[in-house]
Parts: sequence; C-alpha cells; structure tokens
Amino acid sequence: MAEKKISIAVIKRLPKYLRYLEELEKDGVKGVSSQQLSELTGFTASQIRQDFNNFGGFGQQGFGYNVKSLKSAIGDILGHDLVKNAVMIGAGNLGKTIAKYPGFMDSGLNIIGIFDRNPNNIGQEIDGIQIQDVKNVETFLENKKVNVGIISVNKESAQDIADIYVKHGLKGIWNFAPIDLEVPEGVYVENVSFTESFLVLSYFLKNSK
Amino acid sequence: MAEKKISIAVIKRLPKYLRYLEELEKDGVKGVSSQQLSELTGFTASQIRQDFNNFGGFGQQGFGYNVKSLKSAIGDILGHDLVKNAVMIGAGNLGKTIAKYPGFMDSGLNIIGIFDRNPNNIGQEIDGIQIQDVKNVETFLENKKVNVGIISVNKESAQDIADIYVKHGLKGIWNFAPIDLEVPEGVYVENVSFTESFLVLSYFLKNSK
Repeated sequence: MAEKKISIAVIKRLPKYLRYLEELEKDGVKGVSSQQLSELTGFTASQIRQDFNNFGGFGQQGFGYNVKSLKSAIGDILGHDLVKNAVMIGAGNLGKTIAKYPGFMDSGLNIIGIFDRNPNNIGQEIDGIQIQDVKNVETFLENKKVNVGIISVNKESAQDIADIYVKHGLKGIWNFAPIDLEVPEGVYVENVSFTESFLVLSYFLKNSK
Repeated sequence: MAEKKISIAVIKRLPKYLRYLEELEKDGVKGVSSQQLSELTGFTASQIRQDFNNFGGFGQQGFGYNVKSLKSAIGDILGHDLVKNAVMIGAGNLGKTIAKYPGFMDSGLNIIGIFDRNPNNIGQEIDGIQIQDVKNVETFLENKKVNVGIISVNKESAQDIADIYVKHGLKGIWNFAPIDLEVPEGVYVENVSFTESFLVLSYFLKNSK
C-alpha cells in the first residue's frame, strides 16, 4: 500500500502539539478540543484538524480529543520513544550547550560519543561523557550503533564532518553550523539556524506599532 | 488602508529565501525562477509564487526573478538592515554561543549588553563586550535604546527575565529557554527550541527505510 506523503510543514507542527499535550497531561487535563489547542499553539482550529486528519484524525469526540491518547499517538509518529544514539563533533560552547540542554525529556536523544580536535577539550567531561580526539570518531562509528550525527563545529569544518557521518551510514544529521550541507538522498539533515529565527523576530519588530 | 495579514508560516520561510538569494548573488547569478528556488529550498514552485504574491509578487518575468532586487525586497520585509540593539541575560555556554555565532551577517543584530548573575562570569568579556552583573540590567535598560531581549538562562529563571524585559518596554524577546513565556499582547516572543527541531529529525529517522 502506498503511504501518504505528509508535508514537512505538518511534521514541524507536531512537536509543538506534543509539548502542549505534555503540559495538559501534567496539569491533569483529560480532554482538549481543537479550539483549545488553537488557543495554546496559535494555529487555527481548522489547521489543527487538517493536520490530524493526515494521521486518521485521532478520533475527536464531542468532548474533544483524549489528551493522553493524542499525546501518545503524536509521540509515536515522531518516534520520541525510539532511542536515537548520537555522536557529536564539536565540544566548544555550542556542543556543551547541546549536551547539557535540559529540554530533551521524551525525545529519545542519547549522546554516546563526543569528539573535538582541541587538545584543551579532549579528556574533559560533559555530563559524564569524556570528550575524545576527533581522530577516533571513525573507529567509534564503525563499532557502535549510531543513528544521529550532531555537527557543532564552525561552518568551515561542517561539510567534512557531514561527509564522515554519511560515509559511516548515518541517516540523520543534526546541523548547528550556519551552512547548507550536501548529502546524498536518504540522509535527512535538520538544521538549527539562529539567523533564520532571529530574522522572524526582526520582521515582527519592523512591523509592530 | 487595512494591511493584509501575512501568516506566520510565510514569514518563517522568508529567511530561507533570503539565505539562498545571498548565495546566488555571491555566485554572480542574476536571475532565478520559482522552479530553481524550489530546487534550492525544497518548497514547491507554486508555494513560492504564492508566498511572494503576499508582497505583490516581486514581478517575475520570463527569465525569472531578479536576484538582487528580490533579495533586497525580502531583506527589507524582514527588516534585516534595521539595527536591533539587544541585551542578553545569561552568559553561560549558550550565551557565549549566541554572542559569537558567525551567521548573523545582514540580520541587524547588535548585542550591546550582556548580563549574568554568576560572579565567575561577571567582568569577563565575550567578543569585546564585558559581562555585567544582572543587578544592573534594569538601569541599563532605562538608559539605552534596546529593542530585543535575549534569554539564555535556565528555564526556571526565564519568565522572571521576560518580565523585566516587558517592564522596560521591549517588544521583541528571543527565547532559548525550553519554556513558553507569558507576555502581554504587542510583545513578540521568538523561541529557539532544540527539542522541537530534534523531534523533526526523529520523525524522519523513524520513517526512513
């Protein structure tokens, strides 16, 4: 059976739904309507129902969606309980920030190796993981099951790092360097771009009264 | 005259167009079609034309769009040459990463004050800016023209920092803490969420062959 292709815009909204549903569940809320989700997320209720229809609709009843099962369904779609072993190259300020980021509950990220080329960083620990010499990363990738390669180096080195990850069969690259990486089909690159985010803020400042 | 309301989804795509147009201009390319922009950005050509129609269409001719004037028009819309004076609270790894981030060319971000409560950080410099005691931030905000407040503290302190920014009339908050801030109408919060980004990557890993 051919699978329906879900647009990337829909996928990018799912984590936000998940986050609000986690909060609602924590607050003991049992049911939520698309209208209430609209107020929380800022997306229109019709957009939300349309998004959910891509996955069968999640069965909204008179009282709305069941918070617990909606959360669990969206979490499953996002693969949040699938453990994703990750390697990170670049253990400077950015790398340290990522490794210590406190918001990863339930996202399945599991950093198992951190590498750097700076002798001052090698041997130090971040959250209990010892930083290794980047020279050892290929041997590490050969011997461990790794799904995600994190790139937290400068933009000059980012493509070289991506090439190493691709060579060792990693299917997911999480890129924090401000550059577009070239990767073969079948490898997904997720970029975190501070500049793109800042320009959205800039737009609102320019257009606010 | 009533202004047309542009959807946030459109605004969020503009920085990506801008980035590719900057690259095309650097490569000496004069004209680009919506089809070529589609190949670069991954958005469909019809989506791109629809986005541009929100701003009058930017006059695509037979040869496509003029790269230089399209870049300049989108940059204007995003306010990229409007200087945005920013204050940052939180000078740990994350704050250092933001202040040193090399991708801000042409975005108009101008960090003029950095604050922290950690005595080990106070007095140190990041890119030529001395880190001050956070106790002084309110006096600083009273005396300087600041447009943007950056939040690079932990999530427990983030709302308090937001309240200070709001109290001093800042209209833009750039939040890196994994928490939803409550702000009055007229204040725009742009969140950078590592978790949401990671979950999108997780989806593709789960759904790849």
